[in-house]
Amino acid sequence: MALYLDGCQCASKQVDDSTNKDPLVHSKDPKHPANIICQLCRLFYSNNWITGTGGGISVKHPLTGHIYIAPSGVQKEQLQPEEMFVMDPKTEDYIRTPEGYKPSACTPLFMSCYRQRNAAAVIHTHSQHAVMCSLFFDKVFEIANIEQIKALPSGQKDPVTGKDINLSFFDTLHIPIIENTAHEEDLTDGLNEALAAYPNATAVIVRRHGMYVWGPTLDKAKVYNEAIDYLLELATKMHQLGIPPACAIGEEKKYVKTY
Amino acid sequence: MALYLDGCQCASKQVDDSTNKDPLVHSKDPKHPANIICQLCRLFYSNNWITGTGGGISVKHPLTGHIYIAPSGVQKEQLQPEEMFVMDPKTEDYIRTPEGYKPSACTPLFMSCYRQRNAAAVIHTHSQHAVMCSLFFDKVFEIANIEQIKALPSGQKDPVTGKDINLSFFDTLHIPIIENTAHEEDLTDGLNEALAAYPNATAVIVRRHGMYVWGPTLDKAKVYNEAIDYLLELATKMHQLGIPPACAIGEEKKYVKTY
Amino acid sequence: MALYLDGCQCASKQVDDSTNKDPLVHSKDPKHPANIICQLCRLFYSNNWITGTGGGISVKHPLTGHIYIAPSGVQKEQLQPEEMFVMDPKTEDYIRTPEGYKPSACTPLFMSCYRQRNAAAVIHTHSQHAVMCSLFFDKVFEIANIEQIKALPSGQKDPVTGKDINLSFFDTLHIPIIENTAHEEDLTDGLNEALAAYPNATAVIVRRHGMYVWGPTLDKAKVYNEAIDYLLELATKMHQLGIPPACAIGEEKKYVKTY
Amino acid sequence: MALYLDGCQCASKQVDDSTNKDPLVHSKDPKHPANIICQLCRLFYSNNWITGTGGGISVKHPLTGHIYIAPSGVQKEQLQPEEMFVMDPKTEDYIRTPEGYKPSACTPLFMSCYRQRNAAAVIHTHSQHAVMCSLFFDKVFEIANIEQIKALPSGQKDPVTGKDINLSFFDTLHIPIIENTAHEEDLTDGLNEALAAYPNATAVIVRRHGMYVWGPTLDKAKVYNEAIDYLLELATKMHQLGIPPACAIGEEKKYVKTY
Repeated sequence: MALYLDGCQCASKQVDDSTNKDPLVHSKDPKHPANIICQLCRLFYSNNWITGTGGGISVKHPLTGHIYIAPSGVQKEQLQPEEMFVMDPKTEDYIRTPEGYKPSACTPLFMSCYRQRNAAAVIHTHSQHAVMCSLFFDKVFEIANIEQIKALPSGQKDPVTGKDINLSFFDTLHIPIIENTAHEEDLTDGLNEALAAYPNATAVIVRRHGMYVWGPTLDKAKVYNEAIDYLLELATKMHQLGIPPACAIGEEKKYVKTY
Repeated sequence: MALYLDGCQCASKQVDDSTNKDPLVHSKDPKHPANIICQLCRLFYSNNWITGTGGGISVKHPLTGHIYIAPSGVQKEQLQPEEMFVMDPKTEDYIRTPEGYKPSACTPLFMSCYRQRNAAAVIHTHSQHAVMCSLFFDKVFEIANIEQIKALPSGQKDPVTGKDINLSFFDTLHIPIIENTAHEEDLTDGLNEALAAYPNATAVIVRRHGMYVWGPTLDKAKVYNEAIDYLLELATKMHQLGIPPACAIGEEKKYVKTY
Repeated sequence: MALYLDGCQCASKQVDDSTNKDPLVHSKDPKHPANIICQLCRLFYSNNWITGTGGGISVKHPLTGHIYIAPSGVQKEQLQPEEMFVMDPKTEDYIRTPEGYKPSACTPLFMSCYRQRNAAAVIHTHSQHAVMCSLFFDKVFEIANIEQIKALPSGQKDPVTGKDINLSFFDTLHIPIIENTAHEEDLTDGLNEALAAYPNATAVIVRRHGMYVWGPTLDKAKVYNEAIDYLLELATKMHQLGIPPACAIGEEKKYVKTY
Repeated sequence: MALYLDGCQCASKQVDDSTNKDPLVHSKDPKHPANIICQLCRLFYSNNWITGTGGGISVKHPLTGHIYIAPSGVQKEQLQPEEMFVMDPKTEDYIRTPEGYKPSACTPLFMSCYRQRNAAAVIHTHSQHAVMCSLFFDKVFEIANIEQIKALPSGQKDPVTGKDINLSFFDTLHIPIIENTAHEEDLTDGLNEALAAYPNATAVIVRRHGMYVWGPTLDKAKVYNEAIDYLLELATKMHQLGIPPACAIGEEKKYVKTY
């Protein structure tokens, strides 16, 4: 896949050499939201999370607070910084609208996460592991007693340091599953209900669709997305062997095939 | 895989430095059909869609209308622009025949898509997901109520704007499955019948073989191919769990194993 | 994986700048056996075919006839041209022995393919698909009526052109499975028996071990290896669904789960 | 994934150009522990072994004996040499503590391997194959009669040369499985017990967590990790087909589905 994307990057470099640069989206800092969104989209594409224009990502600039959003319906792995929408976080008006592009249908959902969870970044994938788990789980995904759970926040904060406390190995991770709707923007009600009902959740699975994951920093949102996807994949494999993903330690032996 | 292909690209660059360039196939524009076909073949190879000389791709030049086709029997991930056949779309005569190469056996099938669907590009893969679905589906592949379906065209056009309308989440995607033949060119009759019987289809699965996908632009053909492959993979996983891929929302719970 | 291997390539470039170059193994031609073996090993490593020093490859120089063989027990994805053994094809003596390395234990098997099949290259992988098929097939692997079979030779030659004729879609591919032995070199007897019993075979599966694939050119050996691995993977998936990989067209529906 | 990581490497190069270099971690030698740890983390990330800050690696400098350890809780695929902790092997005091980082929770486990096994490197992954095998195996993972086993040490040494003797094809590989604990550092007791009970083991699986693998050189630790992961993957596939991974040669046919 590298070469194909190299070709895309060549095209991008030609654009970078133009004299009319927009400081909102053109930066030499690889961590600038307009650059990191493009980089992450290539990574997510190679993971089969956002194939065929599916999925999306939004990042808040850590200094200016501007909200960067990839446009609707483009091939995300070919995304370029100059294709980015930029929104003022207070007025929620676009301060940059790339010509010929439509805003992402995910925008209202991204905004719910920004407003209600004070998120710094929101990732939306069409992960097949999320879709599969939404078929054999009902209202909530549950997995327990797996080390990777410890990468995810419990919702509690340390009373002294104020830092996030993560789940422990012996905890159960709960992720609400909401029903899909005909139009992505109509998911907002379901998402808002889930945010209210699961105040500690850092992700929502959308049945037969994919998932939304957010975090207090972009790095944390990325880590949460990777850890949850790992757990959804593992849960699907456990289900295939007949093991309930949230069963107690040792209980799995009751379900496992013997020879 | 990157390095291996890098090696191939090095060889390609040596060719690019030669003084005898053919403007039909040598261009610095990464979006030129002769370049993009090579790029996409490397991507498709890394996805296991065109391994071992299998599969193929044809692209119509958006300005000249010339039809570019990769030759028969070459390792597609090593393809170079100067190996391309080029055809005049009106006379259907080759205006460029690379020495020592045979035209692709897929050519008559590509031409059916160009003529009958006004396609701008046709992709042919040996996707294992397509082969697997052709084993457990009969005359038509069906999947319903999955978000990724929305990346695919319904065949309807907006009466005001004239733009393609895609399927909705609640629709069922139908892809006809035709029987394979001893010689690839003999697939043309089956393909033509499927094109007539399924006027809205943007793809045909060939049983125990792979699939053909086309679109009104190269970008759309690529997106359709990715979205369909994602859905074929998901359908195979659903089948493995005993869930009919086209079942109604909620009905999957009837089929799912309980502990 | 790309970056990790990039690091290796950097190390290689330093070696290339040294003044004491051995023309047997140092060439700027990416198709030189010493270079292409290194390139292919990186590709095969990324396919999980030669992980952890497993597997190997040997290529005959198309002009000199010298036989190039990667050494024993090295990490194949980090292989460098100067680590190559080179053998005179007539005397079967090494004309180059890299200091500190042992010849590959696969050497006697490579030599059987060179001698008895006039091979130009031999590929040995630890493909998990080959190991799996060796567990549920007995003396011979069989698959039928799959398009990818057409990439493989029938053993017949066109009486007019003298060119190899490949299998047709309606044919059955047979690959003999031999028993593994404690020492790789002891496989030679089993391989020689299989070569005699299956004069048209271009590959042999070694039970619980992997496979050997060869061809009249390096390109053909590579294509055969890819096509066979694709078919072994597909056969494993068919077996998981209860479908015999060599069943007649349409017969698969008898075995497929209905809802 | 290549491009995303390329972006990271660009950032790294900027750091390398700074004038304040710390010779403990800045070296042009790609084999220097601080460089090879970063390279291997990118490889392991692309293998899904250390996703979402999980996993870790420690390497002893072959000349100075200094122990290099990646810090806690960082995204391992973005690791930079200047983020490394460095420990004096005799005093076990840190001689380099990167500002703002916490030592890895794996450190006591790495130290057990260094002390009790004279390891030169220790790799810790969250491999899903290790987690899956820990669900259907009880106190010890066992697999037998698979060629890849020969990449692993038997614990015996050649009485003449003093070199490690590897397992033979007809041997059974045993890897102890220890119970997971709430805190990674509390695994030390279980690891020490396993090291004592299985004096020939070069790895320990941690139930519902992942595994630790070590070796007398970094290259050997890497090869052992790859070979074991290959065998864990294969064992999971065998289990799915109902075949006990340690069954005798030929016995698998008793368990295999017939049509």
